[in-house]
Amino acid sequence: MIASTPTPPYYAVIFTSLRTQGDNDYGAMADEMFELAQQQPGYLGFESAREGLGITVSYWRSLEDIKNWKANERHLIAQKTGREKWYEQYKVRICKVERDYGF
Amino acid sequence: MIASTPTPPYYAVIFTSLRTQGDNDYGAMADEMFELAQQQPGYLGFESAREGLGITVSYWRSLEDIKNWKANERHLIAQKTGREKWYEQYKVRICKVERDYGF
Repeated sequence: MIASTPTPPYYAVIFTSLRTQGDNDYGAMADEMFELAQQQPGYLGFESAREGLGITVSYWRSLEDIKNWKANERHLIAQKTGREKWYEQYKVRICKVERDYGF
Repeated sequence: MIASTPTPPYYAVIFTSLRTQGDNDYGAMADEMFELAQQQPGYLGFESAREGLGITVSYWRSLEDIKNWKANERHLIAQKTGREKWYEQYKVRICKVERDYGF
């Protein structure tokens, strides 16, 4: 689904990744992180697709909300496990959405 | 591939879409647009994945570069055909990348 986000400005975290081989409990943690992110203050939406390359974009009200989510205890464990087991390579880009349009 | 982008700030265009049924010459135009985008001034990189939802992120040096690419003659035709034939729904978000990290 395309996320229903408010009128800009708001923030986006673009997470681009290449996975390692095998699940290694990735699926269960990904589901948990999706549920948990939705409960965070300032969470606005989420979009994700993987086709070899994985792109996940989450939308947030403020940089402070992004910082708080990054520091979430369960999320810190997921980030550590991601670096150790799940991702061959990844990049996180913190962005300010200045304008949007579409239909 | 994860795009190799320079040190921020730079700009990202997040294009999220749901396709209509059938190719309708989409594939050929998508290939052409990818080639053409790479030749534009200020083009920095490109990431794309579709899994039902399609997410394409292109990276640019400046808002001016994004504006010029949007106004490209062939690209204008692609945008019009996209609205008429290829996309059920889409959203374009113009973003300033303020920070990035990864490995």
